[in-house]
Order: sequence, then structure tokens, then C-alpha cells
Amino acid sequence: MAEIIDGKQWAQQLNVQTKAKVDDLKARGISPKLVVIIVGGDEASQIYVRNKHRKADKIGILSEIKRLPADTSQEALLSVIDGYNRDSSIHAILVQSPLPKQIDEAAITRAISPAKDVDGFHPVNVGKLYTNAKLNFPVSCTPKGIMTLLRAENVELTGANAVVVGRSNIVGRPMAALLLNAGATVTVVHTQTKGMTDYTRQADILVVATGIAHLIKGSDIKPGATVIDVGMDHDANGKLTGDVDFDSAFSVAGKLTPVPGGVGPMTIATLMQQTVELAKWSE
Amino acid sequence: MAEIIDGKQWAQQLNVQTKAKVDDLKARGISPKLVVIIVGGDEASQIYVRNKHRKADKIGILSEIKRLPADTSQEALLSVIDGYNRDSSIHAILVQSPLPKQIDEAAITRAISPAKDVDGFHPVNVGKLYTNAKLNFPVSCTPKGIMTLLRAENVELTGANAVVVGRSNIVGRPMAALLLNAGATVTVVHTQTKGMTDYTRQADILVVATGIAHLIKGSDIKPGATVIDVGMDHDANGKLTGDVDFDSAFSVAGKLTPVPGGVGPMTIATLMQQTVELAKWSE
Repeated sequence: MAEIIDGKQWAQQLNVQTKAKVDDLKARGISPKLVVIIVGGDEASQIYVRNKHRKADKIGILSEIKRLPADTSQEALLSVIDGYNRDSSIHAILVQSPLPKQIDEAAITRAISPAKDVDGFHPVNVGKLYTNAKLNFPVSCTPKGIMTLLRAENVELTGANAVVVGRSNIVGRPMAALLLNAGATVTVVHTQTKGMTDYTRQADILVVATGIAHLIKGSDIKPGATVIDVGMDHDANGKLTGDVDFDSAFSVAGKLTPVPGGVGPMTIATLMQQTVELAKWSE
Repeated sequence: MAEIIDGKQWAQQLNVQTKAKVDDLKARGISPKLVVIIVGGDEASQIYVRNKHRKADKIGILSEIKRLPADTSQEALLSVIDGYNRDSSIHAILVQSPLPKQIDEAAITRAISPAKDVDGFHPVNVGKLYTNAKLNFPVSCTPKGIMTLLRAENVELTGANAVVVGRSNIVGRPMAALLLNAGATVTVVHTQTKGMTDYTRQADILVVATGIAHLIKGSDIKPGATVIDVGMDHDANGKLTGDVDFDSAFSVAGKLTPVPGGVGPMTIATLMQQTVELAKWSE
């Protein structure tokens, strides 16, 4: 029977720490401020953005939502970003995904000042992560939050066999880098992998970020493993569920994150943490 | 019995292609130019630099060696780099490693213009590699050269179990990224890995870059695997040898690079190739 990793509780703890840092910074005359840019945006995006805004507010982080019409041109968006890059009262800039078709998302990522890149997606920040640079720089919030969870749960990282399922730029790849930097032996498996379960069954730490509901079953998991489910999928009834089949995984894993209540709350708490870090580093 | 991968021959082929590209560029009024900066430098570094200079000369690449005294300050070196960054006749800048103690190597890496970063070590170029960016950018020459070898030898990459031994910023990490981008399932093992041979014995492609002479024996290799030896070690008699025990590996591997004559010649040929690419991309 797995121990459930309570992401909500750990996120709350992190938020308390972040709030204390906000108070410190404010006492020194710095008010951490986040801007979230949303271009058009479906209902899910609107909810994400609103949640970020509310959470920031609770923690004492100033936050601004910049809504742009769905037909905004790339040039117009770049010009908005440039304005925020130059505005020293703003410490963190986030452009909500997905963006409309007329906009080159990679070019937008490269346009955000690396010093305000709260998502950690700018190539120069990614490069610092992959070279394990001894510098202050932002890192993609979901994998950074997972590292916080693993450390909070005292999961042994050094020498652990860590398997990351999925190779996205937002989760899989930076997750692999963070685990490697922490001393784990890291394997990245993905859609082109042959015999995926041969790898997952060896993993002491298994991070699953594929967007495929219930891809990983209990029989794919090493008994006692720590299983981190990054999935935000919907089952046949439209209910939120993960990439891991919770019921069968529960009887095999040593520790397991639920969906919802696992990685999700940590991601948003890490976004807040990183906004405050960017403000601090900007001093 | 392994087939020997003839790095010298493949390097020669690459050099012929590079020379043709140099001729093309020259016909259009562009003379690719490489500057190699060496600060102090032991005998080995002097030999490396001289070899690069000679090879460039043969291919028709202009090359300049900038020798600075061993007690050069960081500021002085940064100022030399800045001058080359601004000089539009120069397309590629390489600072020979190792550097004297008073110089912060990481800061030097970040000071070279990413557009002239022929070693591919600048964080922004590393970030582009790790995010598999669809852009032109330089990549660390040794792993890039190994990819050229693997493709020349028609080694199946998609879905292959690739194991990289070593996690340096120069070889192990960028090698892992290139293999992942090519569709391999990639594991990075290193000094903190428990049970290293459990991983190496599963590898269809095994790249060894540890600096430990004869670390990998035939019994650590999957029969028929492609084994790439990045080692440039010295045996008890001072003779150049690799990280792979060639004699025992020879009877197990499917394909195997020798040391010398494997990865080494490809690295320098790739440096030349990349110098010309940087010149072309600068147009």
C-alpha cells in the first residue's frame, strides 16, 4: 500500500515560506510582481490564469493579468513583452500557453528577459540548468516543484534509478536534468522507446508526464518505488485523472502522488516561490 | 568480432565536404575564420592548438592563435574576447581548456558571443540543444562528431537503448541530448550510479566518456552493441588508450571505435565543420 504524497499540504508549507520572503522583501522596499499575459485563451487557460492571480494575491505578490485579443499579432505581443522587460517594477513575466496559431511560441519564449523568465523556458536558463551552473536562475516550475516534493518526502536521490516518461520541454527534459544534477541515474523514455515497461519496472523514482490517462499500471511499477504523476487528463466521464492508474499503482508503489492534489498544487506554489526568487535576485 | 569504426576515414570525408563549403563561401566573399585563445597552457594544450591551426589551414579556414601569458587576469581575457566578438571578420572563437586558476571558466564561456561559440558551450546554445530548437546553433564538437559517426555507420538511433557513461558538460550531457533528440531512449550513468554495468549491458549504443582507462570491459557490453570510446587516457606505459578495454570489447561489440583513430579525428573535423557553419549562419 503506497503512502500518498500530499501535494496540497507541501504546497501550503511552501506558500507559507514564500509569504515570509515576500514580507521580508517588502520590508526592504521591494514588492514582488508577476504579470501573466493571456492571448485569447480557452476556458481552461482562463481558469489557470485566474488561479495564479488569486494565489499571488493571497501570498502578497502583486499580480497583473494582461488580456490580449485572440488575433493579436506576434509583433504586438513582442512589443508588450518588451515593455514589461523594461519595467523594473515587474519581476516575473509569464505568457500563458497555448498561444494562437499566428504566434511562434518559441520566439516568444526567447523574447522574455531571462531575468524575468518565471517559467524557466528561455534557452539561456535551460542551458544553465543542463550545465548545472552554480548561479541563480529560474527552472520550469513543474519539475522544480517535484524536486521540492521528493526532498520533502526524504526520497533518496543520489544513485537512484530515476525514469522520466515523456520528453517535453516543460516537464520531461528539465526533470531529467534536475534529477541528474541531484545525482540520480536518469533514463528518459518516450513515444519512440521500445519496451517502455522494461525501464519503468526498474525505476526507484518514476515520473510520468505523457498526457495519456492511466498509461502506467501497477504492473509497470517496481514495488516500493516513488511514483510522481504529472498527468492532468480526463477519463471517459470527464473526471480529472492522471497518467498513472491510481488503483493498481497504489498496491505496488512505495509513495504516490494523487491527481488532483499531487503535482498540481506544487506547480503553482513553485511559480509563486520563483516569482519571489526573481524579485530577490533582481536586487 | 567487432567492426572497427574508422574515425580517421570518416573525418577525412567530413573535411572534404567542409573544404567544399569553404570554397563556396569564399566564392561569395566570405573567408571563414577561427580564433583560438590559449592562456599559458601546458604542452598538451599547445599540441591541441597547433593541430587545430594546421587542420584549419589545410581546409582553407583562416585561423589565428592568440597566446596570452599564464598570469592573464580574467578582465584582460574578457576584453580580448570582447574584441573578437565585435570583429566581423571572425566567425568562431575557441578558448582552450584548461584555464589558469585565476580565471572563472564558466564566466568565459558565457562571454563568448553565442553566434561565434564554436565549442557550443554557451548556455543559450546548450538550451537550444536541450529544447531541440529548430534553429541553427553550434553544439559541443565531440558529441556532434559522434552523431556524424553513428549516422555514417547507419546505426539505428530511433528507439535504441543508448547509455552514456559520464555526465560532463563537454561530452556526456550534450551527447544525451543529441541522442534523445534523435529518438533514442537515453540513460546517463555516472560516478554516483549504483550497478553501472546493469545499464551498460542493456545498451544498443554505449558512449563512454569518463577519463578512466579501460573502465568498460567486454563483459559490460551487450553483444552486438555499438561502442563509442571518448577516452584519451594513458596506460601504465604512458601509451594513449581509451575508457574501453579494446581487446575484450572487440570480441563482444558489433561496432567499436579505436583510440586513437576513433572519436579524436572526428572532434577536430567537427570543429572545422562548425567554424564554417558559423560563418555561413552569420551571412
